[in-house]
Amino acid sequence: MIYLVGIDLGGTFIKTAIVSHEGELIKKIEIPSEKEKGPDGVIANIIRSVRLAVSEAGTGTNAISAIGIGSPGPIDTKRGIVGRAINLPGWVNIPLRDRIQEVFDIPANLENDANAMAYAEYWKGAGRNAEIMLAYTLGTGVGGGIIIEGKLIRGATGCAGELGHMTIVPDGDLCPCGNRGCLEAYASANSLVRRTLEKIKQGANTILKEWIAEGKTLTSKLIDDARRSGDAFAGMVMREAGTYLGLGMSVVVAVLNPDVIVVGGGMMKAGEIFLEPAREEVKRRVFAEHSQNLKIVAAELGNDAGVIGAAGLLIERGIVP
Amino acid sequence: MIYLVGIDLGGTFIKTAIVSHEGELIKKIEIPSEKEKGPDGVIANIIRSVRLAVSEAGTGTNAISAIGIGSPGPIDTKRGIVGRAINLPGWVNIPLRDRIQEVFDIPANLENDANAMAYAEYWKGAGRNAEIMLAYTLGTGVGGGIIIEGKLIRGATGCAGELGHMTIVPDGDLCPCGNRGCLEAYASANSLVRRTLEKIKQGANTILKEWIAEGKTLTSKLIDDARRSGDAFAGMVMREAGTYLGLGMSVVVAVLNPDVIVVGGGMMKAGEIFLEPAREEVKRRVFAEHSQNLKIVAAELGNDAGVIGAAGLLIERGIVP
Repeated sequence: MIYLVGIDLGGTFIKTAIVSHEGELIKKIEIPSEKEKGPDGVIANIIRSVRLAVSEAGTGTNAISAIGIGSPGPIDTKRGIVGRAINLPGWVNIPLRDRIQEVFDIPANLENDANAMAYAEYWKGAGRNAEIMLAYTLGTGVGGGIIIEGKLIRGATGCAGELGHMTIVPDGDLCPCGNRGCLEAYASANSLVRRTLEKIKQGANTILKEWIAEGKTLTSKLIDDARRSGDAFAGMVMREAGTYLGLGMSVVVAVLNPDVIVVGGGMMKAGEIFLEPAREEVKRRVFAEHSQNLKIVAAELGNDAGVIGAAGLLIERGIVP
Repeated sequence: MIYLVGIDLGGTFIKTAIVSHEGELIKKIEIPSEKEKGPDGVIANIIRSVRLAVSEAGTGTNAISAIGIGSPGPIDTKRGIVGRAINLPGWVNIPLRDRIQEVFDIPANLENDANAMAYAEYWKGAGRNAEIMLAYTLGTGVGGGIIIEGKLIRGATGCAGELGHMTIVPDGDLCPCGNRGCLEAYASANSLVRRTLEKIKQGANTILKEWIAEGKTLTSKLIDDARRSGDAFAGMVMREAGTYLGLGMSVVVAVLNPDVIVVGGGMMKAGEIFLEPAREEVKRRVFAEHSQNLKIVAAELGNDAGVIGAAGLLIERGIVP
């Protein structure tokens, strides 16, 4: 048997997996990124993680045909370069693909991490058999990816699929990217916390006020805990984020007319509370022809999506047969 | 020589052309649609226009290998059906492709008219060699089309590329489609007239007030005439429409990361007055990686784009070799 390596490079952890050509997860490990050590230190950890994963899977290095990497972006996939990675200090124009390729002497491929997650959901998850699939990742930020007829859309300079950084409210909330009114400023975990806090300061009636007074930190999880305990305000702010998500989706639906939209990421632990209002908002804003066959569903692969997708894109790009 | 027929079906005219396999326009004719005669009457005119074009080109019917039709939409390209056409009364679920195919006994293909125009600009116009191209048509409404690596993006139900019917202002102006805040409600000829009239009623200082009092009808052309005569207000409302166009473009740029955006349609007679503010707005709203190599340019094929694109899509779909 021949296997692929899939790597999901994050600001906190490096996840590395041995994956079969059919997309089966054979072995997955996780080690700290140690981002404070800078690019060289993190790359040394990536190399170590590959050796560790191969060793734990017991396949031997000779059974590994290629290495796929998903990294925060923007990514220059053609040249295999990480342009910049906001959560990894010092990462500017790092030729990560070649650095890994040189060490193991097998082909490597570098992709945007959200694109890798999107491809995984198309290959083995909630987007199987989709003709045109969008994927959203709702976490600290909002990422995205687009698969059309089995091919990842990378864009002319490798930056397609930035579904979180489209303007949905022209003079709206400030986004960490510097633009006003991005979807990320309305539907990410950070923006949910920020918007909730603003409303509490304006006098909203909610149990969260007491919890904060007791010393608890306001997180998207705490907001969801309040909602589950019956707090109407918490439910309202979460549904509001879902409506904004739907507003952002409606735009891409008019552009690409997808049949499946997959939504994953940490925020989706709260599940349907975001997707229900999102579906309503999409339906309200697009032509009937756009929405009648459209499915908006939760992702299926959870934390495994990044490594599975990074491996799968080696096949999608034709790097391995 | 073998030739293609390209048809551009509009509410007022049917344009029909004989086009070579290399995209050269051999002969183009134009006859009234006579939409008041309903689908059967219009289809009879389409058939007549094909015979007339073949006759005027002098190629003989045997030299025609296939017929491509661009129609207002939504279009079901797979089944060759016009779902509905707002400017053609009575057109609901009309199997136009098969109706034409039966008469001439050669393959036919039905596409959305804005998609045909987009493909023409990619094939023979301002988008030649683009990797990822968007096209906007600024006319009475706002149409669009998307070409990725030489393939038209049709969408899961044939409705991709509705670049005019994406929400750009969540609670904005009412669009003829029924949604609020569509790009079409800000950047079409009709919306330019409506918004200009609103501002005049609110007391704007402009020569247009006098011209209207003299009995002239306010059109996008009249607004441009005022601008050319030095009217600052007219220049401002036109640039404003261009800024909204750029807002809509910025969203699609984040999604698809195109290298070329082509803008055509009747409004583009005024030219750079729309494109300059559009370019500025795109640059202001997207990542540097998205905008640094992006060209936003005027269409080149004018009124020929519809027929050339309808013919070209016969090749793109593999209907003719």
